Amino acid sequence: MTRLTETARGVYVIAATPFTDSGEIDFDSCDRMVDFYLDAGATGLTVLGIMGEAPKLTTDESSTIVARILKRVNGRVPVVVGASAPGFAQMQDLTRRVMDAGAAGVMVAPPGSLRTDDQIVTYYTQVAEFLGDTPFVVQDFPLTTGVQMAVPALARIFNSLPTAVCLKHEDWPGLAKITALRKDGTLNRRISILCGNGGVFLPEEMERGADGAMTGFAYPEMMVSVVEHHAKGDMERARDLFDAYLPLARMEQQPGAGLAIRKYIMFRRGIIASPAQRKPGANLDALSRAEIDTLMARLDRRLKELA
Amino acid sequence: MTRLTETARGVYVIAATPFTDSGEIDFDSCDRMVDFYLDAGATGLTVLGIMGEAPKLTTDESSTIVARILKRVNGRVPVVVGASAPGFAQMQDLTRRVMDAGAAGVMVAPPGSLRTDDQIVTYYTQVAEFLGDTPFVVQDFPLTTGVQMAVPALARIFNSLPTAVCLKHEDWPGLAKITALRKDGTLNRRISILCGNGGVFLPEEMERGADGAMTGFAYPEMMVSVVEHHAKGDMERARDLFDAYLPLARMEQQPGAGLAIRKYIMFRRGIIASPAQRKPGANLDALSRAEIDTLMARLDRRLKELA
Amino acid sequence: MTRLTETARGVYVIAATPFTDSGEIDFDSCDRMVDFYLDAGATGLTVLGIMGEAPKLTTDESSTIVARILKRVNGRVPVVVGASAPGFAQMQDLTRRVMDAGAAGVMVAPPGSLRTDDQIVTYYTQVAEFLGDTPFVVQDFPLTTGVQMAVPALARIFNSLPTAVCLKHEDWPGLAKITALRKDGTLNRRISILCGNGGVFLPEEMERGADGAMTGFAYPEMMVSVVEHHAKGDMERARDLFDAYLPLARMEQQPGAGLAIRKYIMFRRGIIASPAQRKPGANLDALSRAEIDTLMARLDRRLKELA
Amino acid sequence: MTRLTETARGVYVIAATPFTDSGEIDFDSCDRMVDFYLDAGATGLTVLGIMGEAPKLTTDESSTIVARILKRVNGRVPVVVGASAPGFAQMQDLTRRVMDAGAAGVMVAPPGSLRTDDQIVTYYTQVAEFLGDTPFVVQDFPLTTGVQMAVPALARIFNSLPTAVCLKHEDWPGLAKITALRKDGTLNRRISILCGNGGVFLPEEMERGADGAMTGFAYPEMMVSVVEHHAKGDMERARDLFDAYLPLARMEQQPGAGLAIRKYIMFRRGIIASPAQRKPGANLDALSRAEIDTLMARLDRRLKELA
Repeated sequence: MTRLTETARGVYVIAATPFTDSGEIDFDSCDRMVDFYLDAGATGLTVLGIMGEAPKLTTDESSTIVARILKRVNGRVPVVVGASAPGFAQMQDLTRRVMDAGAAGVMVAPPGSLRTDDQIVTYYTQVAEFLGDTPFVVQDFPLTTGVQMAVPALARIFNSLPTAVCLKHEDWPGLAKITALRKDGTLNRRISILCGNGGVFLPEEMERGADGAMTGFAYPEMMVSVVEHHAKGDMERARDLFDAYLPLARMEQQPGAGLAIRKYIMFRRGIIASPAQRKPGANLDALSRAEIDTLMARLDRRLKELA
Repeated sequence: MTRLTETARGVYVIAATPFTDSGEIDFDSCDRMVDFYLDAGATGLTVLGIMGEAPKLTTDESSTIVARILKRVNGRVPVVVGASAPGFAQMQDLTRRVMDAGAAGVMVAPPGSLRTDDQIVTYYTQVAEFLGDTPFVVQDFPLTTGVQMAVPALARIFNSLPTAVCLKHEDWPGLAKITALRKDGTLNRRISILCGNGGVFLPEEMERGADGAMTGFAYPEMMVSVVEHHAKGDMERARDLFDAYLPLARMEQQPGAGLAIRKYIMFRRGIIASPAQRKPGANLDALSRAEIDTLMARLDRRLKELA
Repeated sequence: MTRLTETARGVYVIAATPFTDSGEIDFDSCDRMVDFYLDAGATGLTVLGIMGEAPKLTTDESSTIVARILKRVNGRVPVVVGASAPGFAQMQDLTRRVMDAGAAGVMVAPPGSLRTDDQIVTYYTQVAEFLGDTPFVVQDFPLTTGVQMAVPALARIFNSLPTAVCLKHEDWPGLAKITALRKDGTLNRRISILCGNGGVFLPEEMERGADGAMTGFAYPEMMVSVVEHHAKGDMERARDLFDAYLPLARMEQQPGAGLAIRKYIMFRRGIIASPAQRKPGANLDALSRAEIDTLMARLDRRLKELA
Repeated sequence: MTRLTETARGVYVIAATPFTDSGEIDFDSCDRMVDFYLDAGATGLTVLGIMGEAPKLTTDESSTIVARILKRVNGRVPVVVGASAPGFAQMQDLTRRVMDAGAAGVMVAPPGSLRTDDQIVTYYTQVAEFLGDTPFVVQDFPLTTGVQMAVPALARIFNSLPTAVCLKHEDWPGLAKITALRKDGTLNRRISILCGNGGVFLPEEMERGADGAMTGFAYPEMMVSVVEHHAKGDMERARDLFDAYLPLARMEQQPGAGLAIRKYIMFRRGIIASPAQRKPGANLDALSRAEIDTLMARLDRRLKELA
């Protein structure tokens, strides 16, 4: 079984949860989505992220969908499972189940009550104790969690907890943080840094030392291109492609509203059979759909110019 | 089966979760605690509250402890179960299980992201839809949830949702809110108002129209006395007793730290076999225990003076 | 004297505060900046915004700089002055001074403690009382203020307070809010809606009924172009230009860090003599400057392609 | 001129701002209040605190009232002035003015945007730079500021900034913090620790090493008694008196609402001529006044029993 390590790189797409129009899990769309992500060049998948529809699933549904995705992936890439929970007992439970089922590691966001450096370091120290030898991703996403993790706190976490192998970097502004973490002397070991924020800073993030992206943009091929062109040293081409997708990425990155846009684009692209969100999520109204249609048409034209 | 209704009154004690020193659920202490609460005059119990150790339980443990408490209560008083969850699917699941097991209703706190009146009203409207005919308590506790529910928002909730039968009033300051809710014309029906905040405003709350308390002070007999003397019109006696307990109530009401104090007092009183909190909770150090010992000794003396 | 009214439209640039390298106010740069904004097509200016360096000025310096800008503008466009203050007495004082000096109106952001609809409406009702007949802008910027103003609360404000003539719209996501405010029946009068967020949603905002922008992007000509092409019905051209600037706008819109980028671009463009921020602001390091240089060079190339 | 030092002890009363019923500053009441505080045994005064009505004063009024209080105190005790401001320029301005007028030092609360230890330490380092040789009080009041200052952050501040001579301790729960700060090895020097929270934990705070109180309870004689009896080693007497006042202290400590109660009690005691708060403050309604009247009558009786 593949385990997540500090060498993780490339694009870990955060998977959506496809539903039918009536709110049932759509497993066929789920399979198609997995294939689409992997065909697009994803080097990993992340499921049950805190920003998606995972909280709308019952515990049984969560297990079922993780199992289905793991089966479809079939070991081709590592799969990380979101395991943030109000308490350690539940986190431990979920982690055991998904690791037994073949997950590569879990991801843990800090509870919103954490403020001081010591509180944050203590929390992740306890996470590591409860998770045993399971590798985990530290999710640094202050806009949503309300928790600001300074570089000294992150350094204490990564320098003392060997199973903390990856940072999901989603601070905003966050470019200086990547530079600080990669600077000699900050960390005493390598970690993987995969960036979020819908990919809207990916060129700069790669140049500052990130290993790739872990986020959910409906066009993962853009992120794959940026990572690959960066590896080849062709940042101009990377930026040309990035810029073409940016008008859509900006829309999808809107907090809350972005998920409906992501699902609508995936629906329009034939990846999932319905753009529906399970209640209480709202679907896009006609005006919003028209906005996205306009931007998708402009993207097609611009990609042709760039071909 | 007893169902929670808008006539709920008296003292609904929020039950602690007794553990052994090694962190296992202590079912014998649990039984003893239930008996203690009922002997003290509790008119109801509330279990799995958001401020206690419920998040440290696995899903299976939660079900087991609810079943144990329901069995011990054996229909003598209604039992409300905390059902706050990150998503409606989990809330619905848990609610079905505990209502099938004999609970009287559930309690739901708002998620911390809610801000505007419309967001709050919409959230509870969805709660009511997902919970069907299960009666529920609206938990208004801004200090912990970060959500401020104004009287107009509460009025919209209670006036439109018949299954919202009770307000757990825990705003601070919150006395004016009770008066506003009880004023003619605010609500178009009766609801039960049970107050929290460790009981430290109970005399004033009763005089402004509350029906009692729903909170977890380690001396429920104080709250029972205040409610009963208020009913008899003897507020001077109610206040004499209240004042005697206030130095301890003030300590126990400290956010976070209060739970260790509560368990220590219950341990000292012989109600639970160990004051231990399950990890990651910290137990009281020697200095803190001595502080509580001093206050408990003073309470004993003062109660004798008042006898 | 021009007064701000509900017909305000176009681009109100939020002015930077130019300092010398040693932290003195640079009045020559200030004049040059005013000329630059007006030459670029600004239809108004806003000074002493909450996100800039206004709090680093003494009260005397604030008055001096407002006077200097008013003198240079010389009535060509209306000037709005930020008057947010911890208390009404100070807000009233500042308002009187700047209105006497020739300002067109003031802008008021809500204090971070406001939560419920009633609290927000009450606050602006008091603002209107204290400001007398001075027209004011309501600043709706939850990311920074922490205050979420729902459409019903805004409707109560604008429908009852005639001197509230303009909404600085900076909610995120916020497109649906514009549509809701412009919908028949929401407001009983016209108001001006000018959008913030660094202009990164300006095409969509104009199409949903905004009157323009009030924000501080270092290329105001982009915003002017979008507004003008929208007026002419040529949204494709508006979007072509918008897209060219978006990679830079995205950088400048980073909270906190964006101001240093703005000043650096304005310095590179020859508008201000130094990119320095007064202490405690940090200037851009070499790596960050190189990032912006790359994006500025790419913008130049793209604008030539589009010419 | 007396300067605040790390030896500050006793009770620094946070002064109210007396207004007439029509909202004018009432200087006679101001003088009477100063005399009352000093007669009650105050060892210092603090004016323009962030929780009071200071923000309702214009800059000129603030200066006038500080001057009046300094004149009336006439060097008998040190006077600390609240100098929290949105920016350092204003803080520096105000500090210079009040220090020239004879203040003993200033008090600075952290801006609500601070989160990480480094941000907090950096902020106070800048405060110290801007204030030069003016001694200052660090205000640690998370309930109101939203800023949590951990012991390691406070240790860095006090160990590196000689002009930071005093902590206004107002964390809640906060008893363990006093113990941690007084523990050998935490700080490399003595500092003064004066406690807030309306005095409701004063006995425990003194026993854990506090030097006294800095807060605004309308019965400063209670705080003076606790400090003095603690000094004499008679904690039982200290607690007897403390307990008598606690029912009122609990009411006055309610956030926001407490100030109206404080002014009402001071009015009832003949200290100030009117309980009025300047707009937009609300005065107590009849029901709330009756609640306080009841508690004042009970206090009188209890004090007689204890005499």
